[in-house]
Amino acid sequence: MRKVRIASVGLGRLGLRHAENISDRIKNAELVALCDLDKKKLDEAADRLNVGHRFTSLEETLALPDLDAVVLVSPSGLHTRQIAAALAAGKHVFSEKPLGITVAECKEAETAVESRPDKVFMLGFMRRFDESYRYAWRKVKAGEIGKPILFRSYSQDPEKFIEGAIAFAAHSGGQFLDMAVHDIDLARWFTGSEPETVYAVGGCYAHPEFGRWKDGDNVSCLMKFRNDCMVFLFAGRTAPHGYNVETEIIGTKGTLRIASVPQKNLVEILDSSGVRRECSENFLERFDSAYVNEVQEFVDCINEGRKPEVSVHDGTRVSEIAHTCKAAFETGELLRF
Amino acid sequence: MRKVRIASVGLGRLGLRHAENISDRIKNAELVALCDLDKKKLDEAADRLNVGHRFTSLEETLALPDLDAVVLVSPSGLHTRQIAAALAAGKHVFSEKPLGITVAECKEAETAVESRPDKVFMLGFMRRFDESYRYAWRKVKAGEIGKPILFRSYSQDPEKFIEGAIAFAAHSGGQFLDMAVHDIDLARWFTGSEPETVYAVGGCYAHPEFGRWKDGDNVSCLMKFRNDCMVFLFAGRTAPHGYNVETEIIGTKGTLRIASVPQKNLVEILDSSGVRRECSENFLERFDSAYVNEVQEFVDCINEGRKPEVSVHDGTRVSEIAHTCKAAFETGELLRF
Amino acid sequence: MRKVRIASVGLGRLGLRHAENISDRIKNAELVALCDLDKKKLDEAADRLNVGHRFTSLEETLALPDLDAVVLVSPSGLHTRQIAAALAAGKHVFSEKPLGITVAECKEAETAVESRPDKVFMLGFMRRFDESYRYAWRKVKAGEIGKPILFRSYSQDPEKFIEGAIAFAAHSGGQFLDMAVHDIDLARWFTGSEPETVYAVGGCYAHPEFGRWKDGDNVSCLMKFRNDCMVFLFAGRTAPHGYNVETEIIGTKGTLRIASVPQKNLVEILDSSGVRRECSENFLERFDSAYVNEVQEFVDCINEGRKPEVSVHDGTRVSEIAHTCKAAFETGELLRF
Amino acid sequence: MRKVRIASVGLGRLGLRHAENISDRIKNAELVALCDLDKKKLDEAADRLNVGHRFTSLEETLALPDLDAVVLVSPSGLHTRQIAAALAAGKHVFSEKPLGITVAECKEAETAVESRPDKVFMLGFMRRFDESYRYAWRKVKAGEIGKPILFRSYSQDPEKFIEGAIAFAAHSGGQFLDMAVHDIDLARWFTGSEPETVYAVGGCYAHPEFGRWKDGDNVSCLMKFRNDCMVFLFAGRTAPHGYNVETEIIGTKGTLRIASVPQKNLVEILDSSGVRRECSENFLERFDSAYVNEVQEFVDCINEGRKPEVSVHDGTRVSEIAHTCKAAFETGELLRF
Repeated sequence: MRKVRIASVGLGRLGLRHAENISDRIKNAELVALCDLDKKKLDEAADRLNVGHRFTSLEETLALPDLDAVVLVSPSGLHTRQIAAALAAGKHVFSEKPLGITVAECKEAETAVESRPDKVFMLGFMRRFDESYRYAWRKVKAGEIGKPILFRSYSQDPEKFIEGAIAFAAHSGGQFLDMAVHDIDLARWFTGSEPETVYAVGGCYAHPEFGRWKDGDNVSCLMKFRNDCMVFLFAGRTAPHGYNVETEIIGTKGTLRIASVPQKNLVEILDSSGVRRECSENFLERFDSAYVNEVQEFVDCINEGRKPEVSVHDGTRVSEIAHTCKAAFETGELLRF
Repeated sequence: MRKVRIASVGLGRLGLRHAENISDRIKNAELVALCDLDKKKLDEAADRLNVGHRFTSLEETLALPDLDAVVLVSPSGLHTRQIAAALAAGKHVFSEKPLGITVAECKEAETAVESRPDKVFMLGFMRRFDESYRYAWRKVKAGEIGKPILFRSYSQDPEKFIEGAIAFAAHSGGQFLDMAVHDIDLARWFTGSEPETVYAVGGCYAHPEFGRWKDGDNVSCLMKFRNDCMVFLFAGRTAPHGYNVETEIIGTKGTLRIASVPQKNLVEILDSSGVRRECSENFLERFDSAYVNEVQEFVDCINEGRKPEVSVHDGTRVSEIAHTCKAAFETGELLRF
Repeated sequence: MRKVRIASVGLGRLGLRHAENISDRIKNAELVALCDLDKKKLDEAADRLNVGHRFTSLEETLALPDLDAVVLVSPSGLHTRQIAAALAAGKHVFSEKPLGITVAECKEAETAVESRPDKVFMLGFMRRFDESYRYAWRKVKAGEIGKPILFRSYSQDPEKFIEGAIAFAAHSGGQFLDMAVHDIDLARWFTGSEPETVYAVGGCYAHPEFGRWKDGDNVSCLMKFRNDCMVFLFAGRTAPHGYNVETEIIGTKGTLRIASVPQKNLVEILDSSGVRRECSENFLERFDSAYVNEVQEFVDCINEGRKPEVSVHDGTRVSEIAHTCKAAFETGELLRF
Repeated sequence: MRKVRIASVGLGRLGLRHAENISDRIKNAELVALCDLDKKKLDEAADRLNVGHRFTSLEETLALPDLDAVVLVSPSGLHTRQIAAALAAGKHVFSEKPLGITVAECKEAETAVESRPDKVFMLGFMRRFDESYRYAWRKVKAGEIGKPILFRSYSQDPEKFIEGAIAFAAHSGGQFLDMAVHDIDLARWFTGSEPETVYAVGGCYAHPEFGRWKDGDNVSCLMKFRNDCMVFLFAGRTAPHGYNVETEIIGTKGTLRIASVPQKNLVEILDSSGVRRECSENFLERFDSAYVNEVQEFVDCINEGRKPEVSVHDGTRVSEIAHTCKAAFETGELLRF
């Protein structure tokens, strides 16, 4: 089987991780090029990972002969345009979330994807590729917990990264678009349904800076889905204990909880603070395997001529929902979808 | 110190438990009379607990010379009237929740209580007397978790008691009044604040019978409190695993979870189903000590001439809030307090 | 039913607790007298608990007319003599462990008990009255875990009480007699069998002071029981996290663990140290209910003319085993029973 | 960097896993050949993993030009001879445990390894490469738990694999050599010390078949190490709940527990059996990453001209200890090292 030749675009923390994974942990794939505006970062990574080609523009990257696919981990504002360019150049595309910043951008991305039905397009909802989430999902689908009653999902970033979050706040789109999109994706995936209403609350409990962008440092919303499932989402940036992503699905016959204790590993410590588990530091630690699995799925889809389960329409839909949650938060009103 | 002479009124499951506790586990108290309409049940209990006086009406009970106090565990619809009668007769009163079925009834009870400032009146919000809840509350008050961001509380009854719940549905007042009142009380107690808005959802996921009373078998609501705290409450009647009352308070400096795993005891079982803990069966098992502690506090207040922390106004306020939650659920609208 | 009239002898920490329990939490019992050499402590307790009679010698105590029973919580060296005296005076006797310091003393106690078959004698192996231990025991007896393979039990005292332990070391009899006796009792109770061999190790890991009495601050032993069950016991005095008593029974069909996490209560804390549970402080906190239950059983036995499950012979047997463990530790040899 | 060209020898369950890992998950390595006596299994694996060379004898395999290294996952009885042959042929060698069946065989392996100091030799003590074990080990080395007091380690295989274990019993060397070697390795690694004495017990609790080889289905031993650390090991084959490898290190300043609950993943299930976690199925599931990490370390050592932390002498030492444990079990005597 010929290896899929991939260029990785964007070398921030997650971009670097994707590049390393493609280089070392993805089978049937080859990292043939790196692209970043920052020449120093680019050289450092390319040297370390022994990558032949290095570019500072997407155009040059796409011009590389024999390139099969790109993995886009660029700033959110560039996603739509880059997706379109890469598809137009005949490349398979894996893009990090969000699909686009506005719903209009998402629609453009949809058009680009639809114009190239021969290409694989995949969006980085990595939680779907975490083994625990997948395990829970299979149980739900198999009917083991009956009909879903309440879906609850938390995304909490550690307080210790708050400065970065504040610096990034102008461009993040806010808590619902930046963090809760993953929970929204999970809610649709687990329930197989869509929201009808949303009420959102929250505020700046520790960091008034977020108020400048009509955002909060901690927010939540309650939605009613078409299948009657209640959906409660919470997203916060001030967790002292670490990176905490947890989900609960209460059904008529059972309840599943994924990562209800955000344990770092299997070590339990008994000391003067009691009996404790240390917590995951960040998304890279918590979702280490998921980041590998999702790109592996992208590569397998290319090799097997399949389309991934997550479509571009899921990306648009999640963005629409997040924007409505944001509007509900800003207005304080109950909104209907 | 003279023992407080108590009559226990109503011998349902919880009434019987209160009677047994007063008889055996409350210090400085004496169970001198029992009262119930059901003569057989009355005799059985009085014989077993060796209680001298037995009555089938509250009037007779109150006429007993030297009686100091009554503990009312009668049907909810009788509470207001019985509270008034007992206070009028000069007795200290401990009443099970709810204070009254309607807010008007609660106001009547307030008047009765206010007319006898020399008497102790206490309402059975037993969770405040559970050691774990108290421990958590002290930490919150001491500022250990900083400013409260999210208060989340669940009350789940086991599916195996569903027939009783359905039979009782016409008179229970619905999920918010019957179950969530405890969570509403906790929310006010932990946050020291009051709700401003509420949005409520839910439905009949397993038992359409509740629809007859515009109720659901599982419901939830999201409230914004005046101090900006988000409050999410969930109440359900279909838990397969047992009786599950859990609460989480997320603050800016830490998070507390009370009973996040509804463990029955300290036994962990490793068998073919994995590693498991069995769960509490019902409120009597889970709150065994709390039921003792609250009546002990009632007795101590009488002996020490103190008033309990929970006032009649808390009872009215919780009922008002529960009624608004119920209205929010029935109308599907966002309501403001 | 006439209340059992009890005198409580010895007002150390545990003695005081027993006195309070008899006064307030034991049904069908009355605390009629207190006895302690320390007049000040005696008066303080008697005043607080409103006890009519106070004595500074056991003889005077036993002379109190209408006294039914004594609860002995005196220094270990006095147990045998006091048991004999109380029985000779026709009183029911509850004695704290150990039955005696030497096996010879235990045999004397046996003779005393056997000479008064009309009296209830009970030894304070309180763990048997802890609800979690009882729950586990019933499962074992019901065959739920099959044939016992390994019985493992830990007794760990908090490091913060080490000064007291060192001060008490000359009279404690050492780790096996002072602490492991409870685990030895549990091993016999759960397995229904007796040890055949023992090998013991340990040392002074933090506190060389214990070496003066040929003891260690942490010790362990491995025994083979007649029914082939392996028994591993560990007793330590240097736990930084708190009071930790845990037991595991591995069987052919399942495993039970009692208190494998020494949680203080149901509160879980998420803060900068991770996700944690605080631990029990000491035996009084961990076995609060067990201390009530055991004396309740003593009173019930008296009232119902029954004998307790734990006999004086269990006391002797446990002491014999503990002495053999101690000898194994001191000699470093494998000993056979 | 040139990729290390590896041949994988032996295609049982673990051999196949190693082959897959080298093919897909190890960086800077290439799986160039497979070797197994079973032609069908060989072809199936080679086709699936797209491996160019396939052999049915080690001799042919070693003759492959440009081969750098072999990974030996053959039957235990062949290890010594194959290690010697591969080293003699100038190949780097990774061998699964045990180093040899007898201590004499281990010594032969030592000679072979010493004769080729230019080659990397590594033994598959994979637990040292599990992230949780490494994390705990670093804490111990950093002094976070003070001086080690008790090291306890369990290896439990699921009852459902018992037929295979019985079939393999004649050649496994028994519980201590087949299972407890990993725990012995951990004990030496964590404590940095060596055993002085051992007492071992156990039996055939469910499966008398093991008696034929003077073995038990569950065994344990208590050792005293030179640094005074107590070491308790338990190995069993009848766990109903799954694959359970857990370790506890109690120190003077804290305790670490690794995998004290053998959870399969991060999913918690609340259903009619209570609150539960499912357990790992087998070593391949539990140590999935560890198997990758250890071979990665082997490859990195080759590339960087380093020697692995685990030496051939560790292999011999662990075998010697396991044989002494086995002798202690068979004789029932206390043995000294």
